[in-house]
Amino acid sequence: MKTRAAVAYEAGKPLEVTEVDLEGPKASEVLVEIKATGLCHTDAYTLSGADPEGQFPSILGHEGAGVVVDVGPEVKHLQKGDHVIPLYTPECRECEYCLNPKTNLCQSIRTTQGQGVMPDGTSRFSIGGKKLHHFMGCSTFSNYTVLPEIALAPIRKDAPFDKVCYIGCGVTTGIGAVVNTAQVEPGSNIVVFGLGGIGLNVIQGARMVGANKIIGVDMNDEKKAWGERFGMTHFVNPKEVGGDLVQHLIEMTGGGADYSFECVGNVKLMRQALECAHKGWGESIIVGVAAAGEEIATRPVQLVTGRTWKGTAFGGARGRTDVPKIVDWYMDGKIEIDPMITHTLSLDEINHGFELMHEGKSIRSVVVY
Amino acid sequence: MKTRAAVAYEAGKPLEVTEVDLEGPKASEVLVEIKATGLCHTDAYTLSGADPEGQFPSILGHEGAGVVVDVGPEVKHLQKGDHVIPLYTPECRECEYCLNPKTNLCQSIRTTQGQGVMPDGTSRFSIGGKKLHHFMGCSTFSNYTVLPEIALAPIRKDAPFDKVCYIGCGVTTGIGAVVNTAQVEPGSNIVVFGLGGIGLNVIQGARMVGANKIIGVDMNDEKKAWGERFGMTHFVNPKEVGGDLVQHLIEMTGGGADYSFECVGNVKLMRQALECAHKGWGESIIVGVAAAGEEIATRPVQLVTGRTWKGTAFGGARGRTDVPKIVDWYMDGKIEIDPMITHTLSLDEINHGFELMHEGKSIRSVVVY
Repeated sequence: MKTRAAVAYEAGKPLEVTEVDLEGPKASEVLVEIKATGLCHTDAYTLSGADPEGQFPSILGHEGAGVVVDVGPEVKHLQKGDHVIPLYTPECRECEYCLNPKTNLCQSIRTTQGQGVMPDGTSRFSIGGKKLHHFMGCSTFSNYTVLPEIALAPIRKDAPFDKVCYIGCGVTTGIGAVVNTAQVEPGSNIVVFGLGGIGLNVIQGARMVGANKIIGVDMNDEKKAWGERFGMTHFVNPKEVGGDLVQHLIEMTGGGADYSFECVGNVKLMRQALECAHKGWGESIIVGVAAAGEEIATRPVQLVTGRTWKGTAFGGARGRTDVPKIVDWYMDGKIEIDPMITHTLSLDEINHGFELMHEGKSIRSVVVY
Repeated sequence: MKTRAAVAYEAGKPLEVTEVDLEGPKASEVLVEIKATGLCHTDAYTLSGADPEGQFPSILGHEGAGVVVDVGPEVKHLQKGDHVIPLYTPECRECEYCLNPKTNLCQSIRTTQGQGVMPDGTSRFSIGGKKLHHFMGCSTFSNYTVLPEIALAPIRKDAPFDKVCYIGCGVTTGIGAVVNTAQVEPGSNIVVFGLGGIGLNVIQGARMVGANKIIGVDMNDEKKAWGERFGMTHFVNPKEVGGDLVQHLIEMTGGGADYSFECVGNVKLMRQALECAHKGWGESIIVGVAAAGEEIATRPVQLVTGRTWKGTAFGGARGRTDVPKIVDWYMDGKIEIDPMITHTLSLDEINHGFELMHEGKSIRSVVVY
């Protein structure tokens, strides 16, 4: 079949919206009509060429929502008409990782996903007979896409695609870091570094679970109102702190954060996040993705005196199990998404969406097909 | 009163065994006759002058066992004749830290302890009218010493002093790292870096809780028999690994250690210990103490893909609560101590004990008064 898609032909070049060829679903695969997709920093990172594992030409996009329009043989849990969210972290429920309750990092199709192909080693996308790579197993910048069944979370049919697509990455990453990875208890003091799309979701996750002080740290004063909108109780602009930021945060929290979250991808902030955690029990969670080759560092006494350093991917969520729950939380009003979707665009405007991101003008831009 | 003690007059100089003056216990303090004391690397570290917080002149030693011979006013839980183990990490059961189940780092007397004095700011030790500092709140290199009541764990009277003194530091640090900090589950694969007095106790802790593979890593082949004596199932000498040690350990464990322990104090090994932990759920525990100013480092993706970096002090044990239990484990044969006490010395021979340590000839030397 033919489908419209935004193709990434080359690193550093704008996407090209064009018609591409899409093969139908093979065994255990599902054809999905994408109704809406968010634009995430990870898409921009790979498009920029900075991602050493980036593949071109490819169809980017990994934060979508849509409807099942066809299923291949052996598909067991989905049928035509089901509403779904694609999962860049699948959940096969059979691999060593899925069977270990401590992790969400299903490894069943990791190798082929990293190679930009389906589990059978081939791509469903092509143009003029030339192969196009899949991206993160999703490729939601195509109006129609094919995914393995294990990489689709079924969701309720009354959930609006143009909002819940954000649960495909940013919402789940931020809220899951709080709920799954840190398991923040009511009354905890938390510090969030970076009030972008992920940091704001950490904030509203902390609000949902009853955190006490929710301190946001950002260099941009305009983020103060954004943070407060989602439950932030205190704002710190490092430029306005006279003296050491870590010491300032320790004083604000009466000894340190019970949980801190780095949502920028800056290794210096990761260190500050760890070191502002409370002696004895503070945990720091790395949510942001650092540039290739960068390293985090601290003195080991920080850990020996009781701080724990962790990271999270996709918010520790098991997609097929947890994503439907987060959709419920949104529909029940426990979390908000609508105000974070600052821009809604057509596929033809997708490059403008990336411009808004780079200019810091959007929290989230969503393309509606 | 007068008591014999080994005095550290100056950094880098041998201890001098001499008679010193000891004031009796003040409010909430207890006079203890030390019956035996282990010699620990921390004593040697401070004596060497490398410890930036070391104080001189002082009476070192923190791994003792003895008998209560007098109690000051307001002592509530101890009486003359009680057998006790001094605690360099006290347990007041009242401070913010003691009341938080996530930590053992009682802070109630930390400041004065760090200054080498009792909680009232004064020392009980002197010689010729000149003040001697306490060390780690214990000073077990004196035949008699005074401690706050909250820094004494009561133990059963049938436990031999010359063995259970080791529970005052090394045994509890190693076994507690397994039992309290990592909470190793039966069937776990563990890797231990450094098979000294702490590493061997990590090994026997892992054996006690039913670990599966218990892999010891040491540059000294003579440690193989030592590790096996306490439950090690595999030995790795990094010098004999052709290729990358981390990759070798990941292969040996079928994907990485469920728990790894660094028991040397070397920041490079701390990194290797983290990186040999299993993707998705592996935890690495820093037990060793690095030199002042040194830093640990890794790529953040190690944490983002599910590894956790922690540390432990005194094995996460709450001394008054947990030390009596560990004494029971020893008396019940669940753990062994006797074979680790390789040398028993008189107080006059204490400097020889440090020589044995530096020459790598002892696992533990114990001074018996």
